[in-house]
Amino acid sequence: MPEQTTGSRPTLEAVAARAGVSRATASRVVNGGAGVRPPLVDKVRQAVEELGYVPNHAARTLVTRRNGAVAVIIAEPEFRIFSDPFFEQQVRGISRELTAYDSQLVLLWVEGPGDHERIARYLGGGHVDGALAFSLHNDDELPAIIRRVKVPTVFGGRPGWPGAASELAVPYVDCDNRGGAREAVRHLVSLGREHIAHIAGPRDQTSALDRIDGYRDVLLDADPELVCQGDFTVDSGAHAMAQLLDRRPDLDAVFAANDLMASGALRTLRERGRRVPDDVALVGFDDMHSVVESTDPPLTTVRQDIEGMGRLMVRLLMRVLNEGDPGSGAPASVITPTTLVRRASA
Amino acid sequence: MPEQTTGSRPTLEAVAARAGVSRATASRVVNGGAGVRPPLVDKVRQAVEELGYVPNHAARTLVTRRNGAVAVIIAEPEFRIFSDPFFEQQVRGISRELTAYDSQLVLLWVEGPGDHERIARYLGGGHVDGALAFSLHNDDELPAIIRRVKVPTVFGGRPGWPGAASELAVPYVDCDNRGGAREAVRHLVSLGREHIAHIAGPRDQTSALDRIDGYRDVLLDADPELVCQGDFTVDSGAHAMAQLLDRRPDLDAVFAANDLMASGALRTLRERGRRVPDDVALVGFDDMHSVVESTDPPLTTVRQDIEGMGRLMVRLLMRVLNEGDPGSGAPASVITPTTLVRRASA
Repeated sequence: MPEQTTGSRPTLEAVAARAGVSRATASRVVNGGAGVRPPLVDKVRQAVEELGYVPNHAARTLVTRRNGAVAVIIAEPEFRIFSDPFFEQQVRGISRELTAYDSQLVLLWVEGPGDHERIARYLGGGHVDGALAFSLHNDDELPAIIRRVKVPTVFGGRPGWPGAASELAVPYVDCDNRGGAREAVRHLVSLGREHIAHIAGPRDQTSALDRIDGYRDVLLDADPELVCQGDFTVDSGAHAMAQLLDRRPDLDAVFAANDLMASGALRTLRERGRRVPDDVALVGFDDMHSVVESTDPPLTTVRQDIEGMGRLMVRLLMRVLNEGDPGSGAPASVITPTTLVRRASA
Repeated sequence: MPEQTTGSRPTLEAVAARAGVSRATASRVVNGGAGVRPPLVDKVRQAVEELGYVPNHAARTLVTRRNGAVAVIIAEPEFRIFSDPFFEQQVRGISRELTAYDSQLVLLWVEGPGDHERIARYLGGGHVDGALAFSLHNDDELPAIIRRVKVPTVFGGRPGWPGAASELAVPYVDCDNRGGAREAVRHLVSLGREHIAHIAGPRDQTSALDRIDGYRDVLLDADPELVCQGDFTVDSGAHAMAQLLDRRPDLDAVFAANDLMASGALRTLRERGRRVPDDVALVGFDDMHSVVESTDPPLTTVRQDIEGMGRLMVRLLMRVLNEGDPGSGAPASVITPTTLVRRASA
């Protein structure tokens, strides 16, 4: 789109001249007034009103892409966001990095599909320079909305929507989910465990699918009965563990696809009188401090740098914003390494 | 400010005509495109580009006050927001009510004073119709910023900044903190307790000050040694309880200004071998389900309807937005009732 013609509309310079202040001061007042002495604020306000000056954010955005704000969209309902420490850590990294860029974080989430149209309107309304979207599910409408409203976006987690694999230029940050899962399962094998079960995450999220793949990389011929699905919550882990014990009472190890499900599994194992790690060795994924250190015994897990991944998402977005259309460059994804952290549970 | 003159800028009607769609469809595409079939989206996009149409959000906002978005500002750092279930409940109420008004919630928080200028710029940038601000501290710069950028705002909690009491028209929602505290302390008195301590919240928040006042309404001559201050976190409650026991080993009851501090106090009482309620009766404030039902024994507390207060804040804001300048009407604050909920701890 061409730059907007200002026509006869009063300029910020005219406002500054009339108020007898610098353009910088007038700009600060028009943009909120922080740090400007009240008498000067009043003078500029008066000039704005007398001249009928209207700041045109939409036009400015098109030219400079600088609203000074970035939307963080979590594709999960509010109760998940506040109960799963993963989101806090990711948001903490994003928040700190955005502060360094002097960009305001505005957090949005998705209670359900009914929210999509409203979010599209907001994202398309020129209120943010870009977006960071994470915890997407494969059938999510968000990627289509983001493409339609053309807001530059970096995804957290490998995109899994239909056709995503062929969209080379979708920028995202993820950890090596498959490699981390392989390491967890290999560790259980090295301890001599013979019947290793897996509590998987939701099948519509690539992180969960990649971790199952890692499990199967090591245990190609594992009994399908040894795999049970949860939804990354504590209760789903407890429930899956009960099913696994019913199906295969001889199991001697479990790899859970995240720490919350591992802590739920631990609850069930205790209730069923199985000692950890003596009877059943247990490994989680994430290394969430609030979880792994409060379990009894402390949890062996696969560490991913969640806060660091949040920071990386911001840096990637700023690169996209500075270099223009993300579609014009090379694929811009970053895969961060994982590390096995050994504690008492395995 | 006068309505912006559109001059020779292309109108939305011109875009619709060129694209061969209705004005409503053109508007939907310009505002994000949700619910519009992709071929129509493309046609409108093309017309927008050919005509150089620029949606002017700032001007539209001045006329209709409808960005379709409301900022929720929590004046606390991110770690508090994610660890204190109070915020989750308040945000849940706000989120549900805003959805009913088809308004997008954008969540902002304040890590420290360094964030104020950026938040002012965002709020003053015409991106939201209004704001809901809560957990303010009395020396917070936020109220001054909000006044300066003139964004219609409803506060959660009675305003306590200098001069706030004389600003009749500041809209806010609060619960009857002082009355609730009185009821808690009267209950402890009715149980025959003679040395009733109080763990207070931070002295720069009106909710904490009102609850101390309620305690003193009943125990006018209480030993000042029986009052110790925390900061509404679990650890501060544990720490305050230890100090109180050191100062007054004869205490036989505690009223804590919130449930989190009460749960911390319970931890200390257990460590020091005091039985609850036999040796020391304990009452909290909030009735936070995730806390009061997981303590042992379950916690007697003062219930406030946190989610309902969130909803009320939205309704009050919508009234302000519909009726214009909040300064022109009657004082618009709502005080909601509290109820004592008796469980085993007192």
